[in-house]
Amino acid sequence: MSGAGVVLASGGLDSTVAASIAVTECERLTMVTFDYGQRHDRELEAAAAVAEHYGAEQVAVTLNADAWGGSALTDPAIEIPLDREIDASIPPTYVPARNLIFLSVALGIAETRDADAVYIGVNALDYSGYPDCRPEFIDAFESAAKLGLRRGVEGRPISIKTPLIAMTKAEIVQEGIRNGAPLDLTWSCYSGGRSPCGMCDACVLRARGFSEAGIADPALEQ
Amino acid sequence: MSGAGVVLASGGLDSTVAASIAVTECERLTMVTFDYGQRHDRELEAAAAVAEHYGAEQVAVTLNADAWGGSALTDPAIEIPLDREIDASIPPTYVPARNLIFLSVALGIAETRDADAVYIGVNALDYSGYPDCRPEFIDAFESAAKLGLRRGVEGRPISIKTPLIAMTKAEIVQEGIRNGAPLDLTWSCYSGGRSPCGMCDACVLRARGFSEAGIADPALEQ
Repeated sequence: MSGAGVVLASGGLDSTVAASIAVTECERLTMVTFDYGQRHDRELEAAAAVAEHYGAEQVAVTLNADAWGGSALTDPAIEIPLDREIDASIPPTYVPARNLIFLSVALGIAETRDADAVYIGVNALDYSGYPDCRPEFIDAFESAAKLGLRRGVEGRPISIKTPLIAMTKAEIVQEGIRNGAPLDLTWSCYSGGRSPCGMCDACVLRARGFSEAGIADPALEQ
Repeated sequence: MSGAGVVLASGGLDSTVAASIAVTECERLTMVTFDYGQRHDRELEAAAAVAEHYGAEQVAVTLNADAWGGSALTDPAIEIPLDREIDASIPPTYVPARNLIFLSVALGIAETRDADAVYIGVNALDYSGYPDCRPEFIDAFESAAKLGLRRGVEGRPISIKTPLIAMTKAEIVQEGIRNGAPLDLTWSCYSGGRSPCGMCDACVLRARGFSEAGIADPALEQ
């Protein structure tokens, strides 16, 4: 067990499974959620519930990314694609610089909590074509952060941990089940209705993961 | 002249001189200001006045960095050092991950504006010991961003320009005068009174710069 850890928590499947791993590796956990002007608050409620489940400190970050837009998630004028063939192209739900911003803020918070690691649930296999989920980006960002942060200058750099990076969505589901992660509390859908739309990339990838793992999605059983 | 540029604008001397250079290199300019819970709004008023002077679009970013603190600039419980001997150590006014966050957001905005460059007025000579002002950090961050941004994937990476990085504070003052920068509108002091305190690092470095340049500070003449 190391000391403290910071988890980027979206309330979705991946970050919750990442938290279920972090909680076994860290004595203290801070979960960081982002209200960045995304279309709905449903994922923030889920993230708060997951943080409560783990007895983690929650830091709720607010950033007005809807003031500059550029994504279907922050600009209502851009439509969320439904039922599309998911390929390696960058979709309209890409948020410019999202993981750069999320990791930067998480690293800043990690310094104030004297944490040794930031956990992010990115995944390079079953993902939506976002360049800021690729391992080469994460590695380069970790190196840059080492140079810009007090902790790097002090010779105690903060590591960026991506425990899910090489897993399929099915393996992520299985890892979560194995760790007793509260998958029933999670929300992945890009829309914010009472129940998931089932047609956006996030819903499609999640359903495929549970299906391939041979497990019923507990969030759909309620 | 390239197309569009984005300037990180604090309302201070350095970022205003950086803007005076950017305006000669870009056809369209977006100036990005940050309300990150710093102690006072005086610098935001200055930044808005500078953006108006240049007829630039202004994007006002709000981020609740006071929710996690860790700096004398965002936590009233930490005192701003006055009249100290400025050395290479990291002072209490260091804001964890500030330039990581500022650059990340600016790069995201640059993508939405189809800009080719982000300008930041960092300076590695007469500075306050912040690790995220060093050229090696900026270079590493630019490389990381190239991997995480759509523009990098498209083969049109956004460059991070640091026109002041190798200048002394006196040279920055001279460059600003030469470019007709509205130095009278700028605000550098870490405190937010009616006039600059004259004793914080920012005031001391600014006064030294004007003095060495042999120029009266127009912001003090009002």
